[in-house]
Amino acid sequence: MPSIDVVFFDVLGTVVDWRGSISAEVEKFLQTCHVSNVDARALADAWVGRYDNAAEKVRNSSRPYVTLDVLNRETLEACIAEFGLEPSRIPNRELEELNRAWHRLKPWPDAVEGITKLKEQFVVAPLSDGHTRMLVDLAKFAELPWDTVLGADVFKAYKPTPEVYIGACNLLNVAPEKAMLVAAHDYDLAGARQCGLKTALVHRRNAADPSKASNIPSSGSWDFSANDLGELAKLLGQNLLR
Amino acid sequence: MPSIDVVFFDVLGTVVDWRGSISAEVEKFLQTCHVSNVDARALADAWVGRYDNAAEKVRNSSRPYVTLDVLNRETLEACIAEFGLEPSRIPNRELEELNRAWHRLKPWPDAVEGITKLKEQFVVAPLSDGHTRMLVDLAKFAELPWDTVLGADVFKAYKPTPEVYIGACNLLNVAPEKAMLVAAHDYDLAGARQCGLKTALVHRRNAADPSKASNIPSSGSWDFSANDLGELAKLLGQNLLR
Repeated sequence: MPSIDVVFFDVLGTVVDWRGSISAEVEKFLQTCHVSNVDARALADAWVGRYDNAAEKVRNSSRPYVTLDVLNRETLEACIAEFGLEPSRIPNRELEELNRAWHRLKPWPDAVEGITKLKEQFVVAPLSDGHTRMLVDLAKFAELPWDTVLGADVFKAYKPTPEVYIGACNLLNVAPEKAMLVAAHDYDLAGARQCGLKTALVHRRNAADPSKASNIPSSGSWDFSANDLGELAKLLGQNLLR
Repeated sequence: MPSIDVVFFDVLGTVVDWRGSISAEVEKFLQTCHVSNVDARALADAWVGRYDNAAEKVRNSSRPYVTLDVLNRETLEACIAEFGLEPSRIPNRELEELNRAWHRLKPWPDAVEGITKLKEQFVVAPLSDGHTRMLVDLAKFAELPWDTVLGADVFKAYKPTPEVYIGACNLLNVAPEKAMLVAAHDYDLAGARQCGLKTALVHRRNAADPSKASNIPSSGSWDFSANDLGELAKLLGQNLLR
């Protein structure tokens, strides 16, 4: 039986419903701005769908690390323009409020209970492209009982850059083979595996990056897979030593 | 009324009873090693008293940053030799177990309730010379409900090096004047004030560094002072805006 000490979690899509939450917030925003001819869900998906390309510029060193707040604000303005709105005619307050939606994403229904259960056995921490303050705000909003929070700003890098997984293991003083990443996305699990971590896939609907050929069923053969975090807690409890 | 967003806490002496806890662990260690002619409390204080000097070598760049686990293990062996024991004749397992005592220090009786109360109003996080894993282990052991954990290894520096206070504010995206340090030690509060943070003194018995002219009453005029964290929570609730 393998033994695991630390369980890291991808957050966007894996622990919280980013696409659903952002879509609801975009709808509110459009109402506040009295815009009726734009589809909220399409705008939300266009916005979320720009995130990977924006992060890629940091990954490939085309630009220095900036937080997701900065990337999101840039992509938000680009998206709004794409949908025929004029960002400069929208009050900055409203744009900022919408940008902050990423700090109040709703957890999947099983998240709090599942993480609480896993916390009894393991050190549990998010390992996200979100920055520390975003993850702290999310944890307070969603009552996620993390042992600590590891933001992308600690490593100044976006996943799947190896420094993120390795740096997180170093900070928690755990050998990669005694750590595990839980995620809903294959590319993230592949990045973790390449660094020597164990991997667990959580199947989530509506969690895929909308810019990618969407909702292809996971093709990787990961160490564990489960339909939610409660199922995963049970599975790890039966198959792992602490 | 000033407004505060984030409250940082010194841990060793402020949140946990380091001298009392280490003393009890040294006593256990001496029994296990069948040593009866050494005073546990004196050995514990000698050990804890070596910590500041050891950290100073990192502060003044005489050596690169290493974690408190590394410094403590070095000072432990030096102390044991000073008390007439031969470190090389003690099983490494016992030395390692005693060194790990710093990961299971007992909280002061008011700590969990006080931090829980403060967490309702503020982001709460330790800001300690302890490293991330030590602080995570301490939080699990003592059930300290931090929003996140900021270890010295994130900044690769020991307090009162300004980078620690400034780095912590940056990671939590808070202006220094909207952050506060809670500590039982003047030098730490002075370091925080110099970086622009608000300061709160908690009076603690048996919390002073034993290597220093001990238990001189605090001489600083800090923004707040309280006898325990419950009293501090009440005080901040009455005198601060979130």
